[in-house]
Amino acid sequence: MTQASHEKWKFLNGVDSPADVKKLKVGELRTLADEIRRFILNSVSKTGGHLASNLGVVELTLAMHYVFDFKEDKLLWDVGHQCYAHKIITGRKEAFERLRLPGGISGFPNPAESVYDRFTVGHAGTAIATAIGMAIGEELKIKNEKISKFKIQNSKFPKIVAVVGDASIVNGVSFEALNNLGLVRRQLLIVLNDNSMAIDATVGAMAKYFSRVRLSQTYEDLRRTTRNILEHMPVIGKSVEEAIERIKKSIRMVLPASQMFESLDIPYFGPVDGHDVGALIQLFEALADLNHPAILHVFTRKGNGFRPAGSRHSPIRSSGLTRAERKKAMTGPIYPASNGASKFHSTGPFKMNGDTVESASVPGRRSFTNVFGEHLTKLAEKDGRIVAITSAMCDGTGLVEFRKRFADRFYDVGIAESAAVDIAAGLAGSGLKPVVCIYSTFLQRSFDQIFQEVALQNLPVVFCIDRAGVVGSDGPTHHGLMDIGFLRMLPNMVLTAPANEVEMKLALEFALGQDGPVVIRYPKDLVPSQDFVPAYVCRACAKPFRLGKSVVVKRRKDSAVAIVSYGSVLTEALEAASLLDKDGIAVDVINARFAAPVDKKIISLLEKGKGLITVEDHTSACGFGSAVLELAASQNAIRNTQYAIRVLGAPRRFIKHDSRSTQLMEVGVNADKIVKTAKKMLKT
Amino acid sequence: MTQASHEKWKFLNGVDSPADVKKLKVGELRTLADEIRRFILNSVSKTGGHLASNLGVVELTLAMHYVFDFKEDKLLWDVGHQCYAHKIITGRKEAFERLRLPGGISGFPNPAESVYDRFTVGHAGTAIATAIGMAIGEELKIKNEKISKFKIQNSKFPKIVAVVGDASIVNGVSFEALNNLGLVRRQLLIVLNDNSMAIDATVGAMAKYFSRVRLSQTYEDLRRTTRNILEHMPVIGKSVEEAIERIKKSIRMVLPASQMFESLDIPYFGPVDGHDVGALIQLFEALADLNHPAILHVFTRKGNGFRPAGSRHSPIRSSGLTRAERKKAMTGPIYPASNGASKFHSTGPFKMNGDTVESASVPGRRSFTNVFGEHLTKLAEKDGRIVAITSAMCDGTGLVEFRKRFADRFYDVGIAESAAVDIAAGLAGSGLKPVVCIYSTFLQRSFDQIFQEVALQNLPVVFCIDRAGVVGSDGPTHHGLMDIGFLRMLPNMVLTAPANEVEMKLALEFALGQDGPVVIRYPKDLVPSQDFVPAYVCRACAKPFRLGKSVVVKRRKDSAVAIVSYGSVLTEALEAASLLDKDGIAVDVINARFAAPVDKKIISLLEKGKGLITVEDHTSACGFGSAVLELAASQNAIRNTQYAIRVLGAPRRFIKHDSRSTQLMEVGVNADKIVKTAKKMLKT
Repeated sequence: MTQASHEKWKFLNGVDSPADVKKLKVGELRTLADEIRRFILNSVSKTGGHLASNLGVVELTLAMHYVFDFKEDKLLWDVGHQCYAHKIITGRKEAFERLRLPGGISGFPNPAESVYDRFTVGHAGTAIATAIGMAIGEELKIKNEKISKFKIQNSKFPKIVAVVGDASIVNGVSFEALNNLGLVRRQLLIVLNDNSMAIDATVGAMAKYFSRVRLSQTYEDLRRTTRNILEHMPVIGKSVEEAIERIKKSIRMVLPASQMFESLDIPYFGPVDGHDVGALIQLFEALADLNHPAILHVFTRKGNGFRPAGSRHSPIRSSGLTRAERKKAMTGPIYPASNGASKFHSTGPFKMNGDTVESASVPGRRSFTNVFGEHLTKLAEKDGRIVAITSAMCDGTGLVEFRKRFADRFYDVGIAESAAVDIAAGLAGSGLKPVVCIYSTFLQRSFDQIFQEVALQNLPVVFCIDRAGVVGSDGPTHHGLMDIGFLRMLPNMVLTAPANEVEMKLALEFALGQDGPVVIRYPKDLVPSQDFVPAYVCRACAKPFRLGKSVVVKRRKDSAVAIVSYGSVLTEALEAASLLDKDGIAVDVINARFAAPVDKKIISLLEKGKGLITVEDHTSACGFGSAVLELAASQNAIRNTQYAIRVLGAPRRFIKHDSRSTQLMEVGVNADKIVKTAKKMLKT
Repeated sequence: MTQASHEKWKFLNGVDSPADVKKLKVGELRTLADEIRRFILNSVSKTGGHLASNLGVVELTLAMHYVFDFKEDKLLWDVGHQCYAHKIITGRKEAFERLRLPGGISGFPNPAESVYDRFTVGHAGTAIATAIGMAIGEELKIKNEKISKFKIQNSKFPKIVAVVGDASIVNGVSFEALNNLGLVRRQLLIVLNDNSMAIDATVGAMAKYFSRVRLSQTYEDLRRTTRNILEHMPVIGKSVEEAIERIKKSIRMVLPASQMFESLDIPYFGPVDGHDVGALIQLFEALADLNHPAILHVFTRKGNGFRPAGSRHSPIRSSGLTRAERKKAMTGPIYPASNGASKFHSTGPFKMNGDTVESASVPGRRSFTNVFGEHLTKLAEKDGRIVAITSAMCDGTGLVEFRKRFADRFYDVGIAESAAVDIAAGLAGSGLKPVVCIYSTFLQRSFDQIFQEVALQNLPVVFCIDRAGVVGSDGPTHHGLMDIGFLRMLPNMVLTAPANEVEMKLALEFALGQDGPVVIRYPKDLVPSQDFVPAYVCRACAKPFRLGKSVVVKRRKDSAVAIVSYGSVLTEALEAASLLDKDGIAVDVINARFAAPVDKKIISLLEKGKGLITVEDHTSACGFGSAVLELAASQNAIRNTQYAIRVLGAPRRFIKHDSRSTQLMEVGVNADKIVKTAKKMLKT
């Protein structure tokens, strides 16, 4: 029995494809929207997932599918975590029982699941550029049909729609794309889904600009704007420019909402109410026929319909902001002490009790993120030079307490990973000790800035890379499997990884004491429970970090193999050692601590005739093990024909969403695999 | 005898520091500006270097140094290739004899040369973000003086100035920084150096917007704007907002030049004439006292004072654009058939003949870039699906002919490497065959887009990576030494490198025939002369590329060592083999062709007991040799204790500007080093 059938849905049961949506009347769509919202809520409360953003775009999603035919037309979601309603009405309703779970559907768009999904995405800012490419491509195909090798089934130009949030549109890549929108000479609609929130409150000048627009509009203003757009939309033969002029004249614009986009030559329509499904349908029908790129600015409410996940910063004035809140929102940065939309951006399972929520059980152990955040706050008390920088991930990187305590030493730059690193370089250049907190996968966007502004200048910037390694339910867009590789090529860069709580603290203290850049990587995981860490491990890991020095955690007489682990996978190495011990096989366990520079002592083990098994939560290409191989080759140290070096790391393929422990098993970075490898080494 | 003393300078001889500039009167500065321009011209004609951009900013540079004290104040050059006048007046005049030459000064800012240089730069778009970091840092240091560990010598807040070109300010990182300018609550001046050119003509909506502003302004307008700014500048107690309101009212603004920046909350002043040194000094004096970030929009003329290097697209109307040219500039993209500013952006030595120029000798052989451009154009004739994308490097990547022939299949997106890749992904998603042409070092800015939009979707985008390897005179910011590493971690990605002309063509044909992404890397170098390539090499390299297959170029009976080269360094491998032959040492030479996937046959040589020497023009960390080590480890193939594998590649340090051949020697990627390594292998 599926989840959908647990409830008595009036319309949802009958919706298995967009065609079913198209059959409904506008009034019925309103009911369907409420049903979908309830469906998402039930579903996410059981499986966990992205909640607030998905509740906000239900009407928008229905209206788009009502007007366009996304089997032919192309719908691109920026970031993609707001695609649940889209997935529900494109035949994947039943699959929500296993949303983000092993074997189930992904929480992001995925072409492998449905023809309605065009790109697997998860990082922000890319939809507009991709849409430009598609629009040019489609136009060129039709134009060059005869001279080219295209096999065109349909010479109708498909409509292209990109849905971009207000937090995503400020990303540098979005701006580069907006600046190049002139490449497109056909229809391309950008829907600016403005919910006034990133994962956290949005920051920056553009957010303030949107905020001014937003707060100047009453609900009646939004309706009037919609009417005016519809009345003045260009019909065939009339230009879009004329239409926009007429619309502008007829709208009482308190603020020139279109100013930003006009200077970029982009026709702008809005703002309009993103929860009025009837109005949205009319707007999409009108805008679909434009022969020119355009932006429709839509106000939506994150967490709409579910109070605990609702944003206090609603874009619609009538929804209940007080005058004081409105004023505050217009003048300064807002850091809500507790914001539902932020809390329910991405959530684990929870229990609903009417309109209130009981939290899921709190884990007894703390995460690497917690330990990092607490310790940084503690160190910052004693050292006024420490500042923290994040890109829209204050909560995710454990900086909430730091922000509260040191508001003037905390900088959230929004989804702008590249600028974050350059700002950090400037801070370091002024003698401060900046700590950059960005997830491993998103730090890929700062590669060039880390190269030029940090490594080349040899500035003491500390990179705290959260979500390094496999990340579980978010899947392939979010794994942090490449940071060791791209960072260890950089001269001056020191790469370290703590294995547990005590090392997290020591690594941070070490990093802040260096005169050049240091990277600390750690996974989206709990720290190993202190209760279960043997005393000899505690002793080994309690030694202060020294540049490029590993620590021997376990040394056995007559061992023929040493397991050399990098970071939190020490736990797996130790478990493997115990298992091997039971089989009478003695092995050493080394905690490498550094991937750059690699401790030469590790190589000296080879010279003593031992085989090495390196273990890391990273792709085995270019990772820690690869660095060990390189060092061994340069030292001419591969003397032991039989054993030499085995590298355990993720294979060069994309790893599906699943639990983190299953993923570690799948990529072969766990105790069992280490045991097998050691036995195989000893046999050959 | 130094170059400076060859000419009879009236003022330049006496200028050895900014203090000497400050002693002069405004009228004398005008003469000094002309002298500096002549000095640059003489100098660059002998050494080569960046010319047009440097001729354009002489007055601007003098005015900034006249007003600010950049020993304490901080001057940040975006990109940095426009810093010659700055270097000349900060004590490095004599050093221009060896500009960009071995042992001489760099063509970019370099803190190792002078306290007046703050960051070593070369990539665009980073100065504003760095300036933000410095401004926050300086403020925080003063504020937290007592509670922190700072040792502050001077609690005066230094002035911060970032000079950004109109082509750089459209880069995504610049935009992210502009969006975060609100973090700064103190003085920070952005000088928008608008010369209406990137290396090529600027493209995109913002360029058109600047163009509209520019073309609407007469010279008299610029002077009037300057007067108005000076009259209405805020004095103590008056706010900048009030001042701007007054300025706006008093200026007859044909176009709202400030619109773009106003929507980002950035006070905007201008446009003003960037060659009126007197006016600039007054403006900087006024703006230096603002207690708030601001932008000064300055029109300059690229190549000013030297007709052959002059831009036809002068930003100043009075400088000679015809009405037709003006109209054209305002309506569409401009691709000048021959543009002096583009030609003289970066130049080798040339001969001056009064006001005309004799080109330096044309090399007899063609470059990898030439061969690529010609062959792509040829292939595009037969296949209408082939399109080309570049980011402001049409000429540098060899696409001029392609652009001429296939204007609707060529896209220059400006300095926007990230968006370029996403647009390519969209094009590939529509069934086209996009070829992305970006230099290796700049492709670092697209890492995350290559990961998400290309590799994860497995789309057939072809990356043609020019300037891979060491690049000679541009130095550390421009070497392409990391592309193999960051790209070979990506699943689905195929990495290949041609060794010579015939392989360049074959590699391109191979790449365009694949269903997934392919990377082709090649150096800034001439292809090996056909006349000197032995027949057996020609035969080996004439074989079509097959996925992951290497070719044996030379096989010797009883050889104990195989040299395995990747890409154009095959020439060095062959030379080494000949040298070893003379010493009676027989070696094999393998042309690897692929770094991902690596040919397993290479590993099988190890099993036959041979030692391998891998050779690549890339950092040895994470490179081709590293991939060979990984494969050998995974195959348990390192059986030969004595020889095993040696990896020759660049060390993990920054390589100074020099000739490319000297750099290859310095990093140990040449025939001599291979010979030594082989002999050492055979001895141990």
